[in-house]
Amino acid sequence: MNNFKYYTPTQVEFGRGTAERAGELVRQFGGTKVLLHFGGGSVKRSGLLDRVAASLSNAGIAYVELGGVVPNPRVSKVREGIELARREGVDFLLAVGGGSVIDSAKAIGYGLAYDGDVWDFYEHKLAPKACAPVGCVLTLAATGSEMSDSSVITNEENGKKRGVNSDLCRCRFALLDPELTFTVPPYQTASGCADIISHTMERYFWGEGTVEPTDSVAEGLLRAMLEMSRRVMQDPQDYDARAAVMWAGSLSHNGLTGCGNGGHGRVGDWACHQLEHELSGMFDVTHGAGLAAIWEGWSSYVMPSAPKRFARFARNVMGVTETDDMQAAKAGIAAYKAFLHEIGMPTSIRELGVELSDEQLDKLAYNCSFEGTRSIGSIRVLEQKDMREVYRLARG
Amino acid sequence: MNNFKYYTPTQVEFGRGTAERAGELVRQFGGTKVLLHFGGGSVKRSGLLDRVAASLSNAGIAYVELGGVVPNPRVSKVREGIELARREGVDFLLAVGGGSVIDSAKAIGYGLAYDGDVWDFYEHKLAPKACAPVGCVLTLAATGSEMSDSSVITNEENGKKRGVNSDLCRCRFALLDPELTFTVPPYQTASGCADIISHTMERYFWGEGTVEPTDSVAEGLLRAMLEMSRRVMQDPQDYDARAAVMWAGSLSHNGLTGCGNGGHGRVGDWACHQLEHELSGMFDVTHGAGLAAIWEGWSSYVMPSAPKRFARFARNVMGVTETDDMQAAKAGIAAYKAFLHEIGMPTSIRELGVELSDEQLDKLAYNCSFEGTRSIGSIRVLEQKDMREVYRLARG
Repeated sequence: MNNFKYYTPTQVEFGRGTAERAGELVRQFGGTKVLLHFGGGSVKRSGLLDRVAASLSNAGIAYVELGGVVPNPRVSKVREGIELARREGVDFLLAVGGGSVIDSAKAIGYGLAYDGDVWDFYEHKLAPKACAPVGCVLTLAATGSEMSDSSVITNEENGKKRGVNSDLCRCRFALLDPELTFTVPPYQTASGCADIISHTMERYFWGEGTVEPTDSVAEGLLRAMLEMSRRVMQDPQDYDARAAVMWAGSLSHNGLTGCGNGGHGRVGDWACHQLEHELSGMFDVTHGAGLAAIWEGWSSYVMPSAPKRFARFARNVMGVTETDDMQAAKAGIAAYKAFLHEIGMPTSIRELGVELSDEQLDKLAYNCSFEGTRSIGSIRVLEQKDMREVYRLARG
Repeated sequence: MNNFKYYTPTQVEFGRGTAERAGELVRQFGGTKVLLHFGGGSVKRSGLLDRVAASLSNAGIAYVELGGVVPNPRVSKVREGIELARREGVDFLLAVGGGSVIDSAKAIGYGLAYDGDVWDFYEHKLAPKACAPVGCVLTLAATGSEMSDSSVITNEENGKKRGVNSDLCRCRFALLDPELTFTVPPYQTASGCADIISHTMERYFWGEGTVEPTDSVAEGLLRAMLEMSRRVMQDPQDYDARAAVMWAGSLSHNGLTGCGNGGHGRVGDWACHQLEHELSGMFDVTHGAGLAAIWEGWSSYVMPSAPKRFARFARNVMGVTETDDMQAAKAGIAAYKAFLHEIGMPTSIRELGVELSDEQLDKLAYNCSFEGTRSIGSIRVLEQKDMREVYRLARG
């Protein structure tokens, strides 16, 4: 087991009616003036934004609103938020929405504590030293941003989607009411499930070794996700299933499933996420669906480097009974692909609606390797040429 | 799924060499003068105390020492610590030891922030409103106190062992080096394993319903613990096994395995812990061994109230293949009893070395029911007469 740090300070309040706790919690964490950050009109139409705003007012907290965050959130909106927050003397960022809104709020938090351009952090020119406090009311189970140390932003000027990881941006509190996800449409729901599962898989597929109890906890989460993803697709108002998916979403990305894992100086593999970031940066596809589209290409390319690990996944998560490791590993890859189809996810880039040219393969690999300057992955380290091959295999 | 709060702010640093981080972390969390709290001579003989003290000095942190904490830590030592800390202007409590030392440090923390007698909190006369900050260097994998909200203290004047639960006392940081547990003797190691497993079981056996992903995560932890407990008993210097047990110990008592569980207004059952508290309060037995001794008596008494739950445990954790729920449940109880024997734990109170008279059965039940004023348990609620019956069944 590798040495690790585990730090999940976010105060989670989970269940029906927790959104109304926003005002009290902002006050508990020292906020006096809030930037109420959200996306499209759904939180307005549903009345959620009004309920959260009323909770702030009842707690004596002033606020300004900034909506308009889009999926694959843009740095332009982040810069707008930083300006507005500075002008209005905001000292607390409250995201009401899904991962895009939370990531945008975290980016605003970094920007408020920095004199230069916030994109500097996402270009990895320097590491952030501080972040204004962030809290959230979650409306979509997917990215795990509500407990994670991650913020991913897209620069629409150059199509680059980049992430920053730091404990500084972890939410002070997260209010998780599964009922708020009842109205999430099927495709978004399934994309969220694929993303949640991927967050555990990225950590699980780090190499050939076993790390307990992390492996067994991860397998438990994955099995629960397979069952509960099917249930939410069948009945979008199944409270216990929505709750399971929502809570699994937080646990899958708060660090729990990576404790002690690691090879090549990385906790987990993360190649699929990095490959997908280029894809959705270039084509604006839904992140979870993009991850699903890459699964077979990536797993079939890297599996021969770690057949035992894929065989354990096959047996302990997918219920495969093959005794030969290589056969079991292949059956596990096929079984997870079948699951993705079952919940309505694409399993190739073509099924995403994107027809990739050879030149676009080159461009994706060039971008994903940061112009040939980095490798990715841990279970198998991928150079630029490997990245191109995975994209090609996933093209369909 | 019930509504729940999940709050685990403890910064965990896990792995070889982490004890030396103590000074830096005390400073990070604002401490300037430390009470260095410990138990017997082993942390002195091993040189650990010197290493931690040097780390404090290197970070410019002053300290005073207070050793002598015993298993089932005493309120008299806590009161001594409060006086000493007041006199010396201590503002941070650093426990170097196992759960007893951490619980004693937490109690001192409560006492420092209170004008009255600290036992008031343990008698549940009132709830604590504040707690001086606590950190720890863990040397024994067992109680989970390093991440839990719990502190259990024994009043040697009346033999009562009582616990207080509050987020206020959660450690600011916990330094977990598995190598520090290499020298823990077999009986203490096995008792720790029994305690860790019990912390997940107490939450798991709350009733008949299923709660995902909590159930699957709990089952993963339990399976890992069965395997890794056997490994540490075979080879006390098996780093990965010691590490697994140590980390499972934290995860089993930080709240994770109780998220969304609950019946009768309780998250989890906790009857075994409460029954054991009276036993070790009266006879000063090792807590984990006491839990092991109570298992068969308790489980056979309550199982008919929730055979499905016990059957799921039997199949998903103990590997039982019986199709009939009642038969599976019985086989699961027997299998866990056999596991306890395998790692050298007692499975009756007689095997603990305690011969209980009928009068002592009465006294234990009387104390455990707080003189007939409370019931305990959730999967089956136990009144004073039920408690006596469980003690009688467990007597052996």
